[in-house]
Amino acid sequence: MNALRIGLVGLGTVGTSVWNNLRSQEELLSRRCGKALRIEKVAEKDRERAREAGVPESQWTSDWRDLALDPSLDVVVELIGGTGIAADLIRESLFHGKDVVTANKALLAERGKELTAFAAERGRRLLFEASVAGGIPLLLALREGLIANEILSLHGIINGTCNYLLSAMASRSLPYREALREAKELGYAEADETLDVAGHDTAHKAVLLSALAYGFWPRLEEVHTEGIQHIDPLDLHFAQELGYSLKLLAILRSHPTRGEIEVRVHPTLLRKGHLLSSVSGVFNAVAVWGDVVGETLFYGRGAGGDPTSSAVLSDLASLASGEVSAREVTSSSVRQAALSLRPMARIFSRYYVRFLVEDRPGVLAEIARVFAAEKISISSVIQPEGHRGKTVPLIVPLIVLLHRSREADVQRACRIIETLPTVKEPAILLRVEDLEPEEEQAS
Amino acid sequence: MNALRIGLVGLGTVGTSVWNNLRSQEELLSRRCGKALRIEKVAEKDRERAREAGVPESQWTSDWRDLALDPSLDVVVELIGGTGIAADLIRESLFHGKDVVTANKALLAERGKELTAFAAERGRRLLFEASVAGGIPLLLALREGLIANEILSLHGIINGTCNYLLSAMASRSLPYREALREAKELGYAEADETLDVAGHDTAHKAVLLSALAYGFWPRLEEVHTEGIQHIDPLDLHFAQELGYSLKLLAILRSHPTRGEIEVRVHPTLLRKGHLLSSVSGVFNAVAVWGDVVGETLFYGRGAGGDPTSSAVLSDLASLASGEVSAREVTSSSVRQAALSLRPMARIFSRYYVRFLVEDRPGVLAEIARVFAAEKISISSVIQPEGHRGKTVPLIVPLIVLLHRSREADVQRACRIIETLPTVKEPAILLRVEDLEPEEEQAS
Repeated sequence: MNALRIGLVGLGTVGTSVWNNLRSQEELLSRRCGKALRIEKVAEKDRERAREAGVPESQWTSDWRDLALDPSLDVVVELIGGTGIAADLIRESLFHGKDVVTANKALLAERGKELTAFAAERGRRLLFEASVAGGIPLLLALREGLIANEILSLHGIINGTCNYLLSAMASRSLPYREALREAKELGYAEADETLDVAGHDTAHKAVLLSALAYGFWPRLEEVHTEGIQHIDPLDLHFAQELGYSLKLLAILRSHPTRGEIEVRVHPTLLRKGHLLSSVSGVFNAVAVWGDVVGETLFYGRGAGGDPTSSAVLSDLASLASGEVSAREVTSSSVRQAALSLRPMARIFSRYYVRFLVEDRPGVLAEIARVFAAEKISISSVIQPEGHRGKTVPLIVPLIVLLHRSREADVQRACRIIETLPTVKEPAILLRVEDLEPEEEQAS
Repeated sequence: MNALRIGLVGLGTVGTSVWNNLRSQEELLSRRCGKALRIEKVAEKDRERAREAGVPESQWTSDWRDLALDPSLDVVVELIGGTGIAADLIRESLFHGKDVVTANKALLAERGKELTAFAAERGRRLLFEASVAGGIPLLLALREGLIANEILSLHGIINGTCNYLLSAMASRSLPYREALREAKELGYAEADETLDVAGHDTAHKAVLLSALAYGFWPRLEEVHTEGIQHIDPLDLHFAQELGYSLKLLAILRSHPTRGEIEVRVHPTLLRKGHLLSSVSGVFNAVAVWGDVVGETLFYGRGAGGDPTSSAVLSDLASLASGEVSAREVTSSSVRQAALSLRPMARIFSRYYVRFLVEDRPGVLAEIARVFAAEKISISSVIQPEGHRGKTVPLIVPLIVLLHRSREADVQRACRIIETLPTVKEPAILLRVEDLEPEEEQAS
């Protein structure tokens, strides 16, 4: 039996897991692919780490170039991460006739358009199933399973750290700092948690999902991105009382008649009862709405060595089986010209807005007047019990739920309301999603 | 651009939907596949139906043989259903060098082993993504996305009719007959509902899932199959009170050290909180546990013209793209010899058992003594309030939850308990699933 000859670069958590799982699943994979999947060489700067993983001296090198240039390798697996060396490694490997498998969402979000174009130019494949929701064969589903569908919308919980934190805060009323400390102890958050909690990691993945679903690579810096660091337990509490869960979502939606794609990342209220609102802990889930198939949802672990290596191995198996999916090549180029990112100011959403106001007559009327002047319709108003501070008059929260409105209008109304003397702090604004594809709107 | 030349047989709900969607998605599919997908001929006995669907006279024939024998066709799509003509059509088409796409689970459950072997022998592909949970790209996930995994267990809600009925009965306390009448009015149940409600349709799909997940085709008649026709609203009520949902599940589990696969279909209690227990209405969902990836879940519409045609079109796209997955060929043959179906008597499960007993002292002690004698451990006993009948002594329900036990032992204990003079009716026995892969058991 001939073999797919693999070079593996990087023995971090995922790399080590790929190394181990490729050996434990060797018999199974070669039976299923009709071909052996064999790691011929491993590049890892840290010799000790390679030894610990059990890489024989003869297969080890400290220099990734040895793999990129090795004419005997069919594919290079890039698992060093980051946007520096990884990019050189991928380009060099493609240039020298190798297919590449990577889990590097940060790099692809920045330079995926260029790298996939380069792969196509060299007639090679650049596969990255492991880069979004590792434990969920989601890219495969978008690329092949739902190939007959225009993707109307996609809603993803695709950062396990954030979902763990929000779940812990909601279910056990933990403050953010405490939930974060716990997540770090459990290994669910990095020592420096910024990339995750500020929403950047989710934005990286949102860019890739847009490329897969629409063949459109939005510029990362233009993707509206809010994190969860500033979520007040008060709002989690009110959201629950109102029958919602709060999740950090990547939201994609197509507006075909205007040739626009909506791509945004922010904490979002989801009506309890929808499956996505029940996804808790470190799990990921993505709801995809196709124009033919209707609603679908995919659920699994998003990170960790094993789930991610399952995705890396499936990419390797597809290379071994000689499967060629036209789509991942063409999707990156064909439609790009025709599409643009819808500016955040022009998206439509329902909203949850919380103000802190003086507890006195007339305040609600003032706020309602501003919304009305902006033609924004209020669906309900909640003045929860409880108060804050000991001043007289009391300062109390006032929550306004808005019908579907345009972001720019809501923002403008909030800015005006914040200037009212009875309103004490900047408004807390959270978007509410109904998870249904929407009608095209005049905007 | 060259084209994949398709012959379509059968213009029922799914066939008509394929005909329509292939035209509406024509541009999108040819762009994504790099090849046009073109229906060249349609075979439909009913000429009027073909006319209504808008099939031009020149493309229509009443005889499926015209398609099976046509040398200009690349693929035949079989959507007539049933186990008679469909089998001849598939064999003839494969014999004459065509690939075949089908949604025919009944036929495949009976003769899938033979037909896939025949396809492999002829060097053709027989694809059937649409045959299980049409709106979910599940077979693709098993075949490719999770290819690096041994499937430890699979739990599927894969019959929309049953799930609709159970959801309606549970959420609105409808009796079975009334829920069924409603489902028929809404088109969620066939005029003759037997195939669905008796669990046979679910069993068909379970056989296919076993073939995909394990390369093992169990004999349909050996798959333990219970339906939902006899579900008493009383048990739905008690299940809810105890924190469970009741679902009709297909359950697959591998026992590798004994070379056994468990495949069974029956109503099952699922702890609320697990995502699968929240799947309601006509939706399908399948939880798959892989040894590398851990837990995953896939959700979407299971039936209906559009979701099913989305799956048919994805099979056609994969043929158009020239993707060859070694697995669907090899899986059907390689491992069959080594595996066998675990007899129902030797499965392990937790159990919910309801007795109707005389409301007098000592009854529980008698029942507990029988279970103890069979070494079955009781986890809890519930004597709900309320009663039945007006006799003295009162006849009341008594629910016993059992720890993990062997089916044969539980059945034997129940048979003994039913002979007690204080026990008035045959026991109602429902299995409780924890949705986790289990340790190999001595059995």
